[in-house]
Amino acid sequence: MMNEKRPRLQIIPLGGLEQIGMNITAFRYEDSIVVVDCGLSFPSDDMLGIDLVIPDITYLEEHLDMVKGFVITHGHEDHIGALPYVLQKIAVPVYGTKLTMGIIEHKLQEHNLTKSAKRRVVKYGQVITLGCFKIEFIRTNHSIVDACALAITTPVGTIVHTGDFKVDYTPVFGDSIDLQRFAELGRKGVLALMSDSTNAIREGFTMSEKTVGKTFDNLFADNVNRRIIVATFASNVDRVQQIINTASRYGRKIVVEGRSMVNIIGTAGELGYLNIPENTLIDIEQLKNYPPEQTVLITTGSQGESMAALSRMASDIHRKVSINKNDTIILSSTPIPGNEKAVAKIINELSAKGAKVIYQDTHVSGHACKEELKLIYSLVKPKYAIPVHGEYRHLQANAEIAAAMGIPEENIFIMSSGDVLELDDESAKVAGHVQTGSILVDGLGVGDVGNIVLRDRQTLAKDGIIIVVMTINRYTCTLLAGPDIVSRGFVYVRESEDLMEESHAVVSNAVDVCMSQGICDWGRLKSVVRDSLSDFLWKKMKRRPMIIPIIMEVDL
Amino acid sequence: MMNEKRPRLQIIPLGGLEQIGMNITAFRYEDSIVVVDCGLSFPSDDMLGIDLVIPDITYLEEHLDMVKGFVITHGHEDHIGALPYVLQKIAVPVYGTKLTMGIIEHKLQEHNLTKSAKRRVVKYGQVITLGCFKIEFIRTNHSIVDACALAITTPVGTIVHTGDFKVDYTPVFGDSIDLQRFAELGRKGVLALMSDSTNAIREGFTMSEKTVGKTFDNLFADNVNRRIIVATFASNVDRVQQIINTASRYGRKIVVEGRSMVNIIGTAGELGYLNIPENTLIDIEQLKNYPPEQTVLITTGSQGESMAALSRMASDIHRKVSINKNDTIILSSTPIPGNEKAVAKIINELSAKGAKVIYQDTHVSGHACKEELKLIYSLVKPKYAIPVHGEYRHLQANAEIAAAMGIPEENIFIMSSGDVLELDDESAKVAGHVQTGSILVDGLGVGDVGNIVLRDRQTLAKDGIIIVVMTINRYTCTLLAGPDIVSRGFVYVRESEDLMEESHAVVSNAVDVCMSQGICDWGRLKSVVRDSLSDFLWKKMKRRPMIIPIIMEVDL
Repeated sequence: MMNEKRPRLQIIPLGGLEQIGMNITAFRYEDSIVVVDCGLSFPSDDMLGIDLVIPDITYLEEHLDMVKGFVITHGHEDHIGALPYVLQKIAVPVYGTKLTMGIIEHKLQEHNLTKSAKRRVVKYGQVITLGCFKIEFIRTNHSIVDACALAITTPVGTIVHTGDFKVDYTPVFGDSIDLQRFAELGRKGVLALMSDSTNAIREGFTMSEKTVGKTFDNLFADNVNRRIIVATFASNVDRVQQIINTASRYGRKIVVEGRSMVNIIGTAGELGYLNIPENTLIDIEQLKNYPPEQTVLITTGSQGESMAALSRMASDIHRKVSINKNDTIILSSTPIPGNEKAVAKIINELSAKGAKVIYQDTHVSGHACKEELKLIYSLVKPKYAIPVHGEYRHLQANAEIAAAMGIPEENIFIMSSGDVLELDDESAKVAGHVQTGSILVDGLGVGDVGNIVLRDRQTLAKDGIIIVVMTINRYTCTLLAGPDIVSRGFVYVRESEDLMEESHAVVSNAVDVCMSQGICDWGRLKSVVRDSLSDFLWKKMKRRPMIIPIIMEVDL
Repeated sequence: MMNEKRPRLQIIPLGGLEQIGMNITAFRYEDSIVVVDCGLSFPSDDMLGIDLVIPDITYLEEHLDMVKGFVITHGHEDHIGALPYVLQKIAVPVYGTKLTMGIIEHKLQEHNLTKSAKRRVVKYGQVITLGCFKIEFIRTNHSIVDACALAITTPVGTIVHTGDFKVDYTPVFGDSIDLQRFAELGRKGVLALMSDSTNAIREGFTMSEKTVGKTFDNLFADNVNRRIIVATFASNVDRVQQIINTASRYGRKIVVEGRSMVNIIGTAGELGYLNIPENTLIDIEQLKNYPPEQTVLITTGSQGESMAALSRMASDIHRKVSINKNDTIILSSTPIPGNEKAVAKIINELSAKGAKVIYQDTHVSGHACKEELKLIYSLVKPKYAIPVHGEYRHLQANAEIAAAMGIPEENIFIMSSGDVLELDDESAKVAGHVQTGSILVDGLGVGDVGNIVLRDRQTLAKDGIIIVVMTINRYTCTLLAGPDIVSRGFVYVRESEDLMEESHAVVSNAVDVCMSQGICDWGRLKSVVRDSLSDFLWKKMKRRPMIIPIIMEVDL
């Protein structure tokens, strides 16, 4: 039949499914590939020493000639953070709205990549053509301004990708999400909807960002006689704008503190996304010239990040700001899963200094809850639903919403990263799998830390290391020096002399027995050392430090 | 004046303040000391490899003759977990209610201490005399049955200690908290109230445990055709009772799985705290003889603990139970702070196997919220308020409630562990400080891992270790073997041969330069090796592995 040979669209998530972060999805039709987003993720608890995680883009490298460009939905790290690494391998243009591209430019500057990487600013409503794809940028709302959904028109139909979004009827900057355009596209027929699952387990509607402004008004009214410090996400420009609005209504001078906060306010201000009344912003050096109750600090560190400004204030190592009982500190955020204890630690430290710390009901999410997702399904009425952005439980909750909205089960796809979904207007199925994975970035090293190294770090972290070193003459099968024992992270040696002596005796004895039998090959000696010491320590103290025997050889 | 010489009561928290867990408080009057609770805490994220943390009891050891006994409020680990360690040093009787003592007995059995440790079971309303103290056990409600508050009558007045508590007007087992007794004590005059701060930041009232039973009824009704697996805290006997009640109403057979769940159900059953209808409980081996929809598993692992039964089911390594799409899994719990990601991981794994996972609105707390604390303050009307059990922010929130209830600021004490609060009916003040701290337990080692060892583990975890070993002849100042480089947890050596060769060259060169100048002392050689390699690696890759130079000496 003709149909069987007709090419189909392939949707290939290279990251971002069954995890939070590292969003990157390839759309391929014949020889054209466009990539939506290029994010990083933060290391999980077992990725010891890792700074960040970027996607394995082998698939794109193998189809380098086909890749037409990166299309970015918004400027959060989990959507742009891998660009400086990926663009070095795949030098194609990057498309996004003004603030998104401003943030990307700043990021590329830090990696000295501004010259090589082509960047194109697009506007809401604009349509770009990349290979056989036409891509329209649709206005949405999110916890960063200039966020987009995408309508990707392909030879087999239109795909709507929401990006990260919420429905905010009263946004702080700009207009509400372009629901009319979603409806219009839906009316014309949408093949598939890929929608944000982050909050799909939450009932109801996410509150408008403006409600936080009202909260600030109340909190500033309650704290007129105190210095106010507000910590929030640097990238939430609307949040910062609302702090500025309330502060200037109360005639307070504003200090911006923390590297990423200074950066983003700079970028957003230059590009016209922030409206700061004249003579409101002061430098942190000038803080001492004003009464504390006439000042506000806007700062980073709302997630308890140990090196951020708020942490440094909390632990008394901030050079310019010391916390006292005249301070009211507002954490305008909720802890990202995994950061709960770090955030609690900061709240405790600040409270113990006598400050009033306010951290409940001071934040709204940037992601759509169940009712908003239902609204988008109602407007777009896609043939296929592909939940994106989230752990499995979030994708599943989104899939359940799709089913409740009348999409047949067989048209709902919970994909895994690397799955190749082939679809057209007649059918869709996962038809293959491409290589994907996590590349670990540690310092300047990209990908040189893998599972073996991580497993070693985990062992070292748990019980430390014992090094047994000796020098032998293999020909005479005699010991010339050692065995010496060195340990780190095992026990405090000065208070465990007996144990270290016993360990030494165990090893010496094992080596002696071995050598007295004329056995001097490295492999045997090493395993005898490792086994005897390991047994001894497990029986004695139920610990398994890493044991590294090192044998040096000197020929006399 | 006479009054100045009159002895005063000392309240000395040895743990449990400004932290969750490790509750232990000494009450001293002249030569009598009683200790309330003796708990452990779980290691914080930076305590790598540590299994659990117990309090430093140097103060008690220094006053051994004065210690009359341990009085335990309830059977949770953060109130009893350090007993097996502490009783070995302080052999005094332990007092508690029946279930509390049953759990302690089981714990002491595991440590082979049942013969040496004296144990006394007390009843609600009973008063015991320890030295100059009279201690009454008052019925409360909590997430474990048989929980007590204590009224400690001293020569200077009565102290009421709530233990961990909530107000449950409709408890599952036994009666509601003895509010009348609190009122009676208050009417007679209470010197100080020490009350549970865990939920002091939460508005309103904690719901009754019975509401969860209603939730189970609804969930079982919704899932009649599916196997049901409920994970909850093993020690929450009432919760387990309610699962049993609902299961038996639906004619389901019950399997209990997970070591601590089996233990606690055994203990609680023997002591009469659990009512299990005959022929309801079956062995896990019999599970296959019943249709899945006629069975319920009650299991451990609701906190995502990696070795607990539910985790093993989720990752397909449980020997008897494999999860399928006919399973409904109820997590009847909320994640303890720090466990959020582990719990999410399990939910995702179970969901990905097709199971229906229910984890929202399936739990109530065991701790009093703001309105309950106000109720207790209203009944007890203490002269002094001493918030206990919680991080600083929780203690502070409790202090704010005390102030709102009319207690003067100067009569409210947010104490730190080790503070000595001296009080009588005329005044109270922190008058000193005793030694306190955290003793780390790692395997069988108690206290042999301290800050230095932890710092080494953190360094090892972050960037691994590089060992540089060489054999020298110091008299001729020549190298006999090496330098050899061994690394673990640094880079994957097979894919980083160039780097390892460069590192070797850097070290060799540094050693050569040193030796060519006739410098052969260990200290210099080691620092030359460490500095040259450390500089090279930082410049090259922005990492700082631990570098251990080892020099062996052979005299020819």
